[in-house]
Amino acid sequence: MDTSSALFLALDLAGTFAFALNGAWTAIRFTRLDIVGVLTLGMITALGGGMIRDVLLGAVPPATFQDWRYLAVAAVGSLVAFVSSRSLHRLATPIVVLDAAGLSLFAVSGALKALDEVGFVQAVILGAITGVGGGTLRDVLIREVPAVLSSGLYAIPALVGAFLAVGAERVGAAALPGAMVAAAVCFAIRMLGVRFGIDAPGPPGSRAPRMME
Amino acid sequence: MDTSSALFLALDLAGTFAFALNGAWTAIRFTRLDIVGVLTLGMITALGGGMIRDVLLGAVPPATFQDWRYLAVAAVGSLVAFVSSRSLHRLATPIVVLDAAGLSLFAVSGALKALDEVGFVQAVILGAITGVGGGTLRDVLIREVPAVLSSGLYAIPALVGAFLAVGAERVGAAALPGAMVAAAVCFAIRMLGVRFGIDAPGPPGSRAPRMME
Amino acid sequence: MDTSSALFLALDLAGTFAFALNGAWTAIRFTRLDIVGVLTLGMITALGGGMIRDVLLGAVPPATFQDWRYLAVAAVGSLVAFVSSRSLHRLATPIVVLDAAGLSLFAVSGALKALDEVGFVQAVILGAITGVGGGTLRDVLIREVPAVLSSGLYAIPALVGAFLAVGAERVGAAALPGAMVAAAVCFAIRMLGVRFGIDAPGPPGSRAPRMME
Repeated sequence: MDTSSALFLALDLAGTFAFALNGAWTAIRFTRLDIVGVLTLGMITALGGGMIRDVLLGAVPPATFQDWRYLAVAAVGSLVAFVSSRSLHRLATPIVVLDAAGLSLFAVSGALKALDEVGFVQAVILGAITGVGGGTLRDVLIREVPAVLSSGLYAIPALVGAFLAVGAERVGAAALPGAMVAAAVCFAIRMLGVRFGIDAPGPPGSRAPRMME
Repeated sequence: MDTSSALFLALDLAGTFAFALNGAWTAIRFTRLDIVGVLTLGMITALGGGMIRDVLLGAVPPATFQDWRYLAVAAVGSLVAFVSSRSLHRLATPIVVLDAAGLSLFAVSGALKALDEVGFVQAVILGAITGVGGGTLRDVLIREVPAVLSSGLYAIPALVGAFLAVGAERVGAAALPGAMVAAAVCFAIRMLGVRFGIDAPGPPGSRAPRMME
Repeated sequence: MDTSSALFLALDLAGTFAFALNGAWTAIRFTRLDIVGVLTLGMITALGGGMIRDVLLGAVPPATFQDWRYLAVAAVGSLVAFVSSRSLHRLATPIVVLDAAGLSLFAVSGALKALDEVGFVQAVILGAITGVGGGTLRDVLIREVPAVLSSGLYAIPALVGAFLAVGAERVGAAALPGAMVAAAVCFAIRMLGVRFGIDAPGPPGSRAPRMME
C-alpha cells in the first residue's frame, strides 16, 4: 500500500469510528433502542456515506464489504458507545462533535476517492455527499429532518472541505497536510456554526429561516 | 452527438430544471429552510430520479456526475426558485405543475435510456421509477408520505408515459414526436387527477381510500 | 439452469411473494392507500431488498429487472393481498408471519448470492441487509420507525440465518437442506421474539429499552 492509499484508509476509518459512536449515541439518546438497534444505527451511520459514495462511483462491492476493517471499526465504535453511554451524563456535546468529525473526514476522503473517477466539481459534490450521507440515513431512519436540510452550516463545510482537499491534490500539495487542513477547516466551520447558531440566509421576505419542529 | 442523444439530454435537463424549481419551492413552502436547505432539497429532487435510474442500470458514475450541465441546471433552477419565492404569492400551483412536468419528462427519458439495457416491461418500470424517484426522496427527507403512495394518479401516469415512449420507439415512430406525445399524455393524466381529485379504487369494503394525515 | 441456481431462484421468488403480501397488507392496514399505493408499497417491499443487494454487489441491472418473474410475482402477490383484504378480519397476524418469512428467505438467498462475490463475514452482512432491506424501505415510506431498529429480534435472526446458509455452503452441506434449515431457524427465532416480546438488552442503566412511540 502506497502512502496515498494509507492516508485515504486512515481518514476513512477515522470517519467510520466517529460516525459509529455518533450514530450509536444518537440511538441511545433519542429513541432508547436496545443493543441491536443501537449497533444497527451506529453501523448504518458509520458505513452509509461510504457505501453511497462507492455505489455512485461504481466501486462495488463497496470498500465496506471488501475490507473487513470497516465492519470491525464500525462494530467496535458502536459497542464502545453502547457500554459507555451510562458514564456520559450528557451525550449532546459528544454527539455533535463526533458528527462534525465524521462529516469532515468523510468529505475529504470521499472527494479524494472520487477524484480518481470524475472531474473536479463532481468530486467536490461527491465528497460532500459522502460526508452527509451516513448522517442523513441516520436521521431518516429515526424520523428526524436531516441535518443537511435543517442546519445552515452542514452542507457548506462539507463542500468547503471537499473543495480544499481536491484543490490541494490538484495543485500538488503534500497529501497528508493537504487532507488534514481540509478536514480541519470543515470541522472548524461546522463547530462555529453549531456554537453560534449561524444559519445561512432564508428566502427573501421570510422571517424565520429555521426549521420548525 | 446524434439526434437521439440530443433529444434524451433535452428531456432529461428539462425534467431536472422542473424538479429543481419544485423541490426548492417545496422546501420554502413546507419547512422554511435556509438557502442551503432550499438548494439541497432542490438539487436532490432534481437529480435523485436520474441517479437512482443510473445506479440501477449500472451506468455509474451517474450522468449527473459525468456531465456538468446536470449540476448547473439543478443549481440554477434551485437558485431561481429561491430568489423568486417572494414574488409568488401562492406556491401551491407552480409546485404541482412543475412536479407533473418533471414526472412526465423523467418517465420518458428514463424509459428511453433503460431500453438500451433491459427489456420492454423493465424499461417501462424503470422509466416510472425515474419519474417518481426524485419526488419520493424529497418527500422522505421532509417527512411527508410520498406522493407515489398517497396520490391516486401519480404512478399510473408515469407508467403510461414510459409505456408510450418505449412503445413509440419500438414501432419505429419518429423519436421527437413520440417522446413529446408520451410526456404530454403523462402530464395530462396527472393534472386531470390533481384537478378533479381522482383516486384509484380503494380496497374492497373500505370507505376512505385516501391517505389519512 | 443447475440445481443451485434453481434453489436460489425459488428462495428469492418465495421471499418476493411473502413480502409482496406483507407490504400490500401493511399499506391497507396502516394507511388506507388506494390500489396504486397498495401495489406500489407491495412491490417496493417485495423487490427492495434484492435491489439493494444487487446494487451493492454490482450485479446491475438487478435481477428484478432482468428476470420478468420477479415483477410478476411481486405484482400478483400485491394484487392477491388487495382483493383478499376484506375477508381477513385481522391482518396483524399474517402481516407479522409473512414479514418473518420474507426476512428468512431473503437473508438466506442474499447471503448465498453474495458469497460468489465477497468473503464470509461480508456475505453474512449482505444477506441480513437483503432480508431487512425491503421492510426498511416500507417502514420509511409509511413513516414508521423501521423494525430493524425498534424490534429486538429482527436483525439477529437475519444474521443467524445468513450465517447458517453461508456456513452450510462452506462445509459442503447439501444445498437444499442447508438453505431450508437456515431459513427455518431464522423464521423460528423471529417468531419466538414476536410471540414472547423478547428484546435484546438495553444500554446499561436504562429501564425502558423499547422504542417509545
